[in-house]
Amino acid sequence: MTTIHDVAALAGVSASSVSNVLNGRTDKLSAKTYSRVEAAIRSLNFSPNRVARQLKTGHTSMLGLLVPSTANPMYGQLALNIEAAAQSRYGYSVLLGNTHRDKQQESRMFADMLAYGLRAVIVVSSLADEQHLNEAARNGMAVVSYDRAARHTKAVHLSSASGAGARVVSSTPLSTSSAFLHGDAVSMSGATGSDDVSRVDHISPDNFQAGYIACEHLIDRGHRHLAFLLPSATTISRSAKIAGFLARAEEGGDLGAPVLARVVKAPTADAFGDSELLDLGAAMAEQIAAMKPIPTGVVTVNDMLAIGLMSGLNKLKLKIPDDISVVGMDGLPIAAFVNPGLTSVAMPLAAMAEAMVERVIARAREPDLPPLNALFETSLVERQSVMPPSDKDGKESIRSC
Amino acid sequence: MTTIHDVAALAGVSASSVSNVLNGRTDKLSAKTYSRVEAAIRSLNFSPNRVARQLKTGHTSMLGLLVPSTANPMYGQLALNIEAAAQSRYGYSVLLGNTHRDKQQESRMFADMLAYGLRAVIVVSSLADEQHLNEAARNGMAVVSYDRAARHTKAVHLSSASGAGARVVSSTPLSTSSAFLHGDAVSMSGATGSDDVSRVDHISPDNFQAGYIACEHLIDRGHRHLAFLLPSATTISRSAKIAGFLARAEEGGDLGAPVLARVVKAPTADAFGDSELLDLGAAMAEQIAAMKPIPTGVVTVNDMLAIGLMSGLNKLKLKIPDDISVVGMDGLPIAAFVNPGLTSVAMPLAAMAEAMVERVIARAREPDLPPLNALFETSLVERQSVMPPSDKDGKESIRSC
Repeated sequence: MTTIHDVAALAGVSASSVSNVLNGRTDKLSAKTYSRVEAAIRSLNFSPNRVARQLKTGHTSMLGLLVPSTANPMYGQLALNIEAAAQSRYGYSVLLGNTHRDKQQESRMFADMLAYGLRAVIVVSSLADEQHLNEAARNGMAVVSYDRAARHTKAVHLSSASGAGARVVSSTPLSTSSAFLHGDAVSMSGATGSDDVSRVDHISPDNFQAGYIACEHLIDRGHRHLAFLLPSATTISRSAKIAGFLARAEEGGDLGAPVLARVVKAPTADAFGDSELLDLGAAMAEQIAAMKPIPTGVVTVNDMLAIGLMSGLNKLKLKIPDDISVVGMDGLPIAAFVNPGLTSVAMPLAAMAEAMVERVIARAREPDLPPLNALFETSLVERQSVMPPSDKDGKESIRSC
Repeated sequence: MTTIHDVAALAGVSASSVSNVLNGRTDKLSAKTYSRVEAAIRSLNFSPNRVARQLKTGHTSMLGLLVPSTANPMYGQLALNIEAAAQSRYGYSVLLGNTHRDKQQESRMFADMLAYGLRAVIVVSSLADEQHLNEAARNGMAVVSYDRAARHTKAVHLSSASGAGARVVSSTPLSTSSAFLHGDAVSMSGATGSDDVSRVDHISPDNFQAGYIACEHLIDRGHRHLAFLLPSATTISRSAKIAGFLARAEEGGDLGAPVLARVVKAPTADAFGDSELLDLGAAMAEQIAAMKPIPTGVVTVNDMLAIGLMSGLNKLKLKIPDDISVVGMDGLPIAAFVNPGLTSVAMPLAAMAEAMVERVIARAREPDLPPLNALFETSLVERQSVMPPSDKDGKESIRSC
C-alpha cells in the first residue's frame, strides 16, 4: 500500500513536506516542492485528500448541507447558523448545495458527498417522498431532515424559549427529549411514519402550531374572514401549517363566533423558485382582492410571500393593516424593516441548527440510534401589519426582540 | 496499487458493484453488499472517492465557492447563479463556504478544498491582502476573485446589456475581451497590480462606475448635499465605490454648481456581519439626521444598508423620498418590494457568474493563462426612493424590468 513515505522518496522531499501538502499547510512550501510532491502523488496514484485518513480515523471534518435555495434568506440564514454550530462545537466545515427541491438533484448531491467521504448530511427537504434520504442513510450516511417532522406521529416537543437548550413542552412529554439534545438514544420507533426501518432523523419547527397561532392572532384581533396564502406546490411543512390554521379557525371566535377561513393557492404550477416568492406574493394580491367577501386577515406560508403580497396589495390601493392585516411565517430579519413592519411567526433557527448539528454528528458516530422526530416551538412576533378589521382602536405593536 | 478488482475480490462481489458504490449508484445495492464493499475498502485503505479518478482523468466535477455570508441575499443570489452556470454548462456541482471575510477562514477552506481534490475555486473576497489567494493559486488551485478588480490597472470593461455574452465598452478596449469569455488567453500582465506573478483572475462589477452613476442620479435630480454611507471596514470594492461617488460630486451640478459630498462610516468597528447590515443601516439613520447641513440625498454601499437606513429615518419621522432621497447598490429583488421602492445600482450577477465559472474552469485546464482583470458595467434602476429636494414636482418613477 502506498504511503506518504513512498511519495516523499519519489519526490525527493521529506515526509513532512508531503504531509504539509496533504494538509494544505503550504505557506512555507516552495512552488517547486509542491509540484514535485503533486507529481509523485499522481504517478503513485496516491490520494492527496482526507478520505484516506478518514478511513483510518473513522471521521471526516466536513458536514454536508442541502437547502432548496440560498436565494431565500430563510435558508441563507439557516446555512449560516448550521455552519456556526458545526465549527464552534466540532470544528467541522460545511459543504452546501442548492437542491431547488428537486429529488434527482438531492440524490446526486448525496452521492457526491458520499463519494467525497462525507458521512453526515443535514437536508432541508419537504419532498413528500423521502426514499432517497433513507437510501443515503442505508448507504452509511447520517441524515437529519429539516422541516418535515410530522405531528401525527409521536414527537418530542421542544422549546428554545429558555434560550439555553430546550425543554419539554409537549402535552405528552418524553423524558428523553433532553437526552436527545446530548446525542443519546431516544426510543421512538415508527417516528417517521411510513418507513419503520428509516434511520433518518427529523427536526422541524412545529408547523402545525405556527399555523395555529398565526390564525389565533388574527381571530383575537377580531378578524372573522381569513385566508391562508401559499404557492401551488404542497409540501409536508406547508400542509402542517394549513392544518394548524384551519384547526384554529374551526374553533371560532369569542362565544364561538364562526370564522370563515379559506386556503388560497397560486393558480399556476410552481414556476416560482424560492427567489421568486416576492413576485408570486405580489401577483397573488389580485386573487385576494377578487375574493368575496374579501378577507380582512391573511396568513402567508412564509415571510417573502407576505412581503410580496403587501407590495401587491399596496399597488391595488389596499392599505396594510387598515384594509387587510397580514401575518407572515419565518421571522426573517428583513420582516422588521419593511413598511409596515411584518408581524410574523418566528422559527427558532439557531436552536434548531444546533440540535441538527449535534444530532447528525451523534448519528454518524452511533449509526444504530433510533430515529428521532423533534418539533421546536414557534413564537409570534408582533409588528405593524395587523390591526382590528373595524375602526375601533385596538391596534397593538410589540417590538420584536 | 490497489484497484477496485482487489476490493471486489475481497468483498466477494462484482467490480461493477464496487463501481456502483464508488459512484453513489446505490439504489439497487443491498445494505449487505454495500457494507461488504465498504469493509473491503477500509481494510485495503482504498479511497472510495473521486479524487483517485481525478488524478487519472485530471479533472473533478466540483467547483469551490467562498462567500462572506449567505445571510446576505446578495451572496445567496450569486451562489445560486454560479451553481446554475456551473451545472448547466459543465455539469459541475458547487461546494460553498461562508468565510465571514476572515482571512484565516478563507485559507482554511482553500486548504480543505485542495485536500478534497478541488482544483477550481471562485472566492468573493474584498480583503485588501490577497496573499492567501495567490498561495492557493501557486498550490495548483484555479482561483477567480470576485468584487476586487481594480480600475487603476488596465482592465477589460464588459457589459451584459446585450444579455447574450459581453461586449467591449471600455475607452481602452481590448479586442481580446470576447476571447476571454471563451477561455482564451488575454495578455494583461500586472493586471492585479501588486503581485506580478499572481495567477488569480479578477471579475467584478465596475464599482467606481456604480458610485459615479449613483451620485450623478442624485445630482441630476437637483441634490447638492450628498452623503455616502458604509460600514466601518474599508474593502477594495467599497473604496472604488467611494472614489466614483466623490469623482462625480467633484464635477458638480449644472453650470458647475458646487456639490457638498461627505462619506459617512459606521462609528464602531464592524461588529456587524452581513446578516446585520439592516440593523447597521437603521442605527446610522441618527448619524445622517445629526449632519449639518442634513444631506438631501444619500447613497449606501449596498441595498441591505439602504433598507435599514430607510426604516431608521422613518422612525425619526424623516420621510423617504420627501425629506431624504436614498440610492442603494446591488439591485436585490427585495429592493423592488420595500416601501418606497428602492432606487438602486444593479450589478449584472448572472453575467458575472457565467464569466467567473467559464474563466475558473478555463484556468484549471490552462494554468498558464495570464491573469485577467475584468469589470462589468452596472446600471441604475429607478424606483420611488428618489425625488428632487425641493417641492417642485419632478419626481420620476421608472419600473425596474
